[in-house]
Amino acid sequence: MLIRAGYDITFNVDQPTPLLAMLSVHPSRNRDLQTPHRIETNPSVPIYDYVDGFGNIGTRVTIPAGGMMLSADFTIEDNGLVDASAEGKLQLPIEQLPDDVLVYLLGSRYCETDRLSDTAWALFSHIEPGWKRVQAIVEFTHNHIEFGYQHARPTKTAWDAHQEGLGVCRDYAHLAITLCRCMNIPARYCTGYLPDIDVPLTDAPMDFAAWFDVYLEDDWYTFDARNLHPRIGRILMARGRDATDAALTTVFGRSQLTGFTVRAQQILTLD
Amino acid sequence: MLIRAGYDITFNVDQPTPLLAMLSVHPSRNRDLQTPHRIETNPSVPIYDYVDGFGNIGTRVTIPAGGMMLSADFTIEDNGLVDASAEGKLQLPIEQLPDDVLVYLLGSRYCETDRLSDTAWALFSHIEPGWKRVQAIVEFTHNHIEFGYQHARPTKTAWDAHQEGLGVCRDYAHLAITLCRCMNIPARYCTGYLPDIDVPLTDAPMDFAAWFDVYLEDDWYTFDARNLHPRIGRILMARGRDATDAALTTVFGRSQLTGFTVRAQQILTLD
Amino acid sequence: MLIRAGYDITFNVDQPTPLLAMLSVHPSRNRDLQTPHRIETNPSVPIYDYVDGFGNIGTRVTIPAGGMMLSADFTIEDNGLVDASAEGKLQLPIEQLPDDVLVYLLGSRYCETDRLSDTAWALFSHIEPGWKRVQAIVEFTHNHIEFGYQHARPTKTAWDAHQEGLGVCRDYAHLAITLCRCMNIPARYCTGYLPDIDVPLTDAPMDFAAWFDVYLEDDWYTFDARNLHPRIGRILMARGRDATDAALTTVFGRSQLTGFTVRAQQILTLD
Amino acid sequence: MLIRAGYDITFNVDQPTPLLAMLSVHPSRNRDLQTPHRIETNPSVPIYDYVDGFGNIGTRVTIPAGGMMLSADFTIEDNGLVDASAEGKLQLPIEQLPDDVLVYLLGSRYCETDRLSDTAWALFSHIEPGWKRVQAIVEFTHNHIEFGYQHARPTKTAWDAHQEGLGVCRDYAHLAITLCRCMNIPARYCTGYLPDIDVPLTDAPMDFAAWFDVYLEDDWYTFDARNLHPRIGRILMARGRDATDAALTTVFGRSQLTGFTVRAQQILTLD
Repeated sequence: MLIRAGYDITFNVDQPTPLLAMLSVHPSRNRDLQTPHRIETNPSVPIYDYVDGFGNIGTRVTIPAGGMMLSADFTIEDNGLVDASAEGKLQLPIEQLPDDVLVYLLGSRYCETDRLSDTAWALFSHIEPGWKRVQAIVEFTHNHIEFGYQHARPTKTAWDAHQEGLGVCRDYAHLAITLCRCMNIPARYCTGYLPDIDVPLTDAPMDFAAWFDVYLEDDWYTFDARNLHPRIGRILMARGRDATDAALTTVFGRSQLTGFTVRAQQILTLD
Repeated sequence: MLIRAGYDITFNVDQPTPLLAMLSVHPSRNRDLQTPHRIETNPSVPIYDYVDGFGNIGTRVTIPAGGMMLSADFTIEDNGLVDASAEGKLQLPIEQLPDDVLVYLLGSRYCETDRLSDTAWALFSHIEPGWKRVQAIVEFTHNHIEFGYQHARPTKTAWDAHQEGLGVCRDYAHLAITLCRCMNIPARYCTGYLPDIDVPLTDAPMDFAAWFDVYLEDDWYTFDARNLHPRIGRILMARGRDATDAALTTVFGRSQLTGFTVRAQQILTLD
Repeated sequence: MLIRAGYDITFNVDQPTPLLAMLSVHPSRNRDLQTPHRIETNPSVPIYDYVDGFGNIGTRVTIPAGGMMLSADFTIEDNGLVDASAEGKLQLPIEQLPDDVLVYLLGSRYCETDRLSDTAWALFSHIEPGWKRVQAIVEFTHNHIEFGYQHARPTKTAWDAHQEGLGVCRDYAHLAITLCRCMNIPARYCTGYLPDIDVPLTDAPMDFAAWFDVYLEDDWYTFDARNLHPRIGRILMARGRDATDAALTTVFGRSQLTGFTVRAQQILTLD
Repeated sequence: MLIRAGYDITFNVDQPTPLLAMLSVHPSRNRDLQTPHRIETNPSVPIYDYVDGFGNIGTRVTIPAGGMMLSADFTIEDNGLVDASAEGKLQLPIEQLPDDVLVYLLGSRYCETDRLSDTAWALFSHIEPGWKRVQAIVEFTHNHIEFGYQHARPTKTAWDAHQEGLGVCRDYAHLAITLCRCMNIPARYCTGYLPDIDVPLTDAPMDFAAWFDVYLEDDWYTFDARNLHPRIGRILMARGRDATDAALTTVFGRSQLTGFTVRAQQILTLD
């Protein structure tokens, strides 16, 4: 299927303010792009991309005094399938994990493995390792946190989300990631578009979504503690150890977000 | 000058327990090695090295039931000079920083930039940017934290160290790093050997040391908020966003550290 | 100074034909871009960038049946200085070279170090190592090859250029690179824009240029065996072991180049 | 199964001579090592490892005047299966190839794709793309080259091997790789141990072996134009674009190889 997606994001600033954005499609999806993914700025200013240490495309730009809109609009091919199932996948003992996934066992800004380790072992050590254990973590997280945009704050960590029982999709991801890592399952944070395909309609304005990957048996598999059920049409933008690395925008200075619309929907065609 | 260094570290475990170690000399010092750096295990078990995402040499080994000693002993050439001075070095505006240093502006497990930003700006925004500002951060940190091994704990963050005013060398580093990042100065955590050369003798048994680098003008420069003064003979082992990435050992399971000696001293020769 | 540069390149093909292009500005110049560097295609087709193993930006696109034009037009800031001089720079003994420059001592498709080694040692071993030796190689190459577009062919190697004494700028670069490598001096191939600034006017239509870097003492330095003299305003696009890695376009199939214009000139302003 | 392998290699030199060695087990096999892989030198001299741009472990050492022996001896676990079959695997169109395999379509020192392209298309374009085409290339190469150690020479390329019809295992690999690349199939050179397991005994002293990988459908698959049939127990040491990158030793200066023994055999145990 084809999905058309994009955004318009406007910042207001009083003085020139550097911005680091992870607002491109992840390189793993480059070959699916039917139109180039290019971030337009209004007004037009110097802008360029680079690849960060996690393989994400970062974009560097300075918001001029008076503000700027960042926009993108692109069409991408998608296989139209729900997230690949990890059912039955085994958990590798640590000594068999590939070298490059080890970093996803360690703590990070929003994932305090050292503080949640006892909790994780108390809750999940009796559950069969591997897919079942991840599934239990995802269900626990889904039920433990009550969703609400009013519960979001930039400093909120997995520990905070666990204590408060309140949060948004990034908090669900952080808590589930942290619990997985505590159980020696590599887990990484993902962000991107999540169109509403084959799900009930909602009134809520669209936003970017956060989910996570875990490494089981032979590969990374997608899980979503917020939505619980496999979904169609995720378009990955960035991933990393947690929301720090995959922040859609990091503004180095005072700014106001004065406009924010995200779009992603299947292009329907008459057959 | 020549420095001879090494360690004997013993873990006791009840069952086979994977260990990730950053106990090698950093590759940037490879060409100075006069003898090969090789980690010996007793008993002898499978062991191998890899290079992590920060360029450090990581070592993977599984501690067998009954425990194991890790040892190294090597000789390295050193220029014998004190840490290169950053005096007068300018602070680059963010838009001029190289792409690969940006990650060292972000928060990390033990460096909560989001929580210390107001503190940092209140304390240091009136000081000239660049070397002087870093120097002020280092002095503030040195004076703010009271040293004591009894103040160490694995979950302690820069925020905690700032609140409590107590800590060990890793806490000095974390607090200074966090304050630098808040002021838009890239900073990274370093760990390694720090021999006592041209400093007063102490009774304390030797330990590994933590310090940090900041990126100014054209390069990374070494600072040490614990010792304050430039030193001779640092031998870098690992660096990263904070102590998470440069942890000398990460044990995945229950273990006891039953032996720990570190050595590093100048080889004195008769001329 | 500001330089405005770009190109229009047209290929004709009978059937869809994949193209790999190194037609972007090298990431080391990204922060100098005053306008975004974006390759436009006419007709509009899917296109994306990636970073290759040498740090170049590669672009992947498929030329549709009927052909396609690739265009770029951008403005870049330049320091306006001539190539940094390597005068007096020492040649490092191999054991002191950084690990990542060693590959530039090895042979490659167009640089047969194994076949030119005796020649190189016969010609240059009596000359002081370092800058003087490189300079001698550059002068020898400049004088040994007679320039002429009619002497260009895609299979031509350094050995061929040396035998025939005829070639174009890429052959000058290949021969000088090979001779440097034979003398244990790391050398890499570079391609990009070379505007006519502070040089006599010519009638020849502008083309991209090839030059090379050698590693001396502490860094890479630019040399140009075709032009011999330091120049102003080079804009690097790609570099690698030889023209294979930095080919501006690699077409996988039959194609005709039906249009080719390159532009690069200083933007002159009234003061 | 367990395989015990190693070597003793002795060089004689008159003056200190830098050596670059690819004589370690490839990192992809690190987790199979039952004993550490460590290169011992006699006499003992400074030596260290690094990871090259292809992911191989390179070792840097300087042979002292008077010469030196390099030795290794290790035990590795192997699955005991023959090379995974690529039967039925499809050839990806170039536009679907991952970015990081594109470099293995390009020419290299010993693989002159530009010179053998017409030959390749004349011989193999009528054969079904994918596994069958690779198999045809392997069989052609096997039959076209007559094996003989006396036909080896360091400057010999795929073109030379094709013209002369004579060569050793590295020439078989270079010719088959080049023909694959000409047909738009990514191919890379491999070197390592190839023990005699389940094959007729021979009198020949053991040597390291060369083979190659091609990228089909979803992964890299092993082919061996010298031995033609799938084998058990290959232990990869290094891979790259051709023998330049995977040279077991590159000596920067005059040297004599005065000793060379390679060992690799299954450890047989009584059940």
